[in-house]
Amino acid sequence: MPDTMKAVRFHGKEDLRFEDIPNPSLPPTHIRLTPAYNGICGTDLHEYSGGPNLCPTTPHPITRETVPLTFGHEFSGIVTEVGPAVPSDANIKPGDRVCVQPIIYDGTCGACKEGYINCCYSNGFVGLSGWGGGLAESCFVPASCVVKLPDNVSLRAGALIEPLAVGWHAVNMSEFEKLDVKNVGVLVTGGGPIGLAVIQALKARGAGKVIVSEISGKRKEFAKDFGADYVLDPTKDDVVARCKELCEGQGVHVAFDCAGVKPGLDAAILATRARGLIVNIAVWEKPVLINVNDLVFKERKYMGIATYQAGDFQAVLSAISEGRMKPEGMITKEISLDKVLKEGFESLLQDKGNLVKVMVQVRPPKDES
Amino acid sequence: MPDTMKAVRFHGKEDLRFEDIPNPSLPPTHIRLTPAYNGICGTDLHEYSGGPNLCPTTPHPITRETVPLTFGHEFSGIVTEVGPAVPSDANIKPGDRVCVQPIIYDGTCGACKEGYINCCYSNGFVGLSGWGGGLAESCFVPASCVVKLPDNVSLRAGALIEPLAVGWHAVNMSEFEKLDVKNVGVLVTGGGPIGLAVIQALKARGAGKVIVSEISGKRKEFAKDFGADYVLDPTKDDVVARCKELCEGQGVHVAFDCAGVKPGLDAAILATRARGLIVNIAVWEKPVLINVNDLVFKERKYMGIATYQAGDFQAVLSAISEGRMKPEGMITKEISLDKVLKEGFESLLQDKGNLVKVMVQVRPPKDES
Ligand SMILES: [Zn+2]
Ligand SMILES: [Zn+2]
Repeated sequence: MPDTMKAVRFHGKEDLRFEDIPNPSLPPTHIRLTPAYNGICGTDLHEYSGGPNLCPTTPHPITRETVPLTFGHEFSGIVTEVGPAVPSDANIKPGDRVCVQPIIYDGTCGACKEGYINCCYSNGFVGLSGWGGGLAESCFVPASCVVKLPDNVSLRAGALIEPLAVGWHAVNMSEFEKLDVKNVGVLVTGGGPIGLAVIQALKARGAGKVIVSEISGKRKEFAKDFGADYVLDPTKDDVVARCKELCEGQGVHVAFDCAGVKPGLDAAILATRARGLIVNIAVWEKPVLINVNDLVFKERKYMGIATYQAGDFQAVLSAISEGRMKPEGMITKEISLDKVLKEGFESLLQDKGNLVKVMVQVRPPKDES
Repeated sequence: MPDTMKAVRFHGKEDLRFEDIPNPSLPPTHIRLTPAYNGICGTDLHEYSGGPNLCPTTPHPITRETVPLTFGHEFSGIVTEVGPAVPSDANIKPGDRVCVQPIIYDGTCGACKEGYINCCYSNGFVGLSGWGGGLAESCFVPASCVVKLPDNVSLRAGALIEPLAVGWHAVNMSEFEKLDVKNVGVLVTGGGPIGLAVIQALKARGAGKVIVSEISGKRKEFAKDFGADYVLDPTKDDVVARCKELCEGQGVHVAFDCAGVKPGLDAAILATRARGLIVNIAVWEKPVLINVNDLVFKERKYMGIATYQAGDFQAVLSAISEGRMKPEGMITKEISLDKVLKEGFESLLQDKGNLVKVMVQVRPPKDES
């Protein structure tokens, strides 16, 4: 193994560098991978343009690392080395095709003890909080983060599992499947990668009336392509009135807010019927003014959702493997590792509405490139 | 029946009059009562000091009435006349001791059709939206509003069923009973009448760790009297830290916000554990800034609750009849109908923290006065 490797590292606000860094030695409890594909995520963009927010500037409680840190938390790769302390029931060996579930958790806090590792009080993410990331020629992750890909799921699709799992988890948490899924209305605000993940998760479970609210023309097309039954434009349509019209005069049963902007949230609340549920998936930049009485008088519920939990990656992989989800169309552009700053981050920041997922070909094996 | 009667009517902001009004004729679908006891409610105070808000200034869609309107929606009384179109299965006859469930609903909107009459798009309340109210020598209400009192429940207690039902319904909606009620922590912010109703509903279902946050000395004592296991003062205690300490380092499973002020809500959210629930019972005067990320990162749920629904009055009456709730101690002062403005509204506005429920003796029968 060479002493150094190429990596894309975040040093601070608007400071992302493609550089040579030491190839770290593998902790005995971890697994080393060669990343194949890595998607660029909205969280990465936020860190770059306005951070560090999630990225630690004082040592992260678990990784003990601070910026500069290697980016990349949506990735697939090939296992190259298994640490000697990885339990054999992890059932991972060199050569395995895998994707990474990037949650870092302590396993000891109250949330972890109750099984909610995504709510861990010390939580972090591979690719944001240390222990490397997918935007490097090599990286290592705890054994708990490695999920094997079924043979018929490509490494390219493998790098989409992370955002898809966010949508899958949100749909699970909403208990949508307890409803009459063919007939009840669902609103999805925002047709970016997470909105599209929610649409796909809904359609994979048989949703019959998915209404998407999105401004960008390209994203509207994508929403349709991935199965949205109705696509509304909040600059032209009265989203609340349309949702009522489409849903027995009453509104949707569930709204998924994937936009995280006040007008979208206001509409999502009012477009939801009595006893309806509004699921927030977006991370907000600042507190938002909410008219609580709109929750009160119609007994609506507003629920926050964080990433995913055990089982979500496997469920998404099964849905893809069985043909119920076909996510590769989310990739609108592929670039090489050395082009991440200009053709990845800067393009996305300038042209977010037309790009969905920019995928970095890190080191895909020849037969999957 | 005399042509006129005494009534306390709301004419507009800070304009409440004890006056003679015509004794209206009974609509055939309604039931006439002589109110016995009527409690003064926070909603009444809000209308008086800052309204009309809920009280209609254009004709209410169901009652067709506008201010001036007779006040009083927490009341008990004796049936004096049953309209000829009241169905016989209502099983109500003159002389019956009853309390009033004051929701006015259209029965035809989407919310009503789904059974959520408390979320009716045209909803109103007897005593706020027309059809009279409990603060008059006589009043009439739809047959659907009349609930018979068990023999061992006093008319005085009967006038407390309405606020108690608000707390009962909130506890139902929280699905608190699915938890390990003896051991999980619950926070109640605000020890006014609704907070005390929630405390009583929780204790009647076996709650073992009820934590109340309240500033006023008198209300703290009441919270204790009605069974609070811990009473915190947010001006002295760190409510979030104390809730974590009292609940395995993690916080409460459910918080009931009965205060409706930003610092209380902020604390209620942060005092709740991962996947916990915050139930809002308060009506807010204006939108509030919420840090949605506090819901997101711990997957908390925020739920609005409106009044009560079918069954809640009966459930509270059973709890009182069987001795699981003893609410009469909530009454801190009793006054006569002619004293409502000075000794009711003005006293409450000046000394809210020391008064809990001011009860008006409207026309109690001699053996229950
Ligand atoms: Zn943890
Ligand atoms: Zn209705």
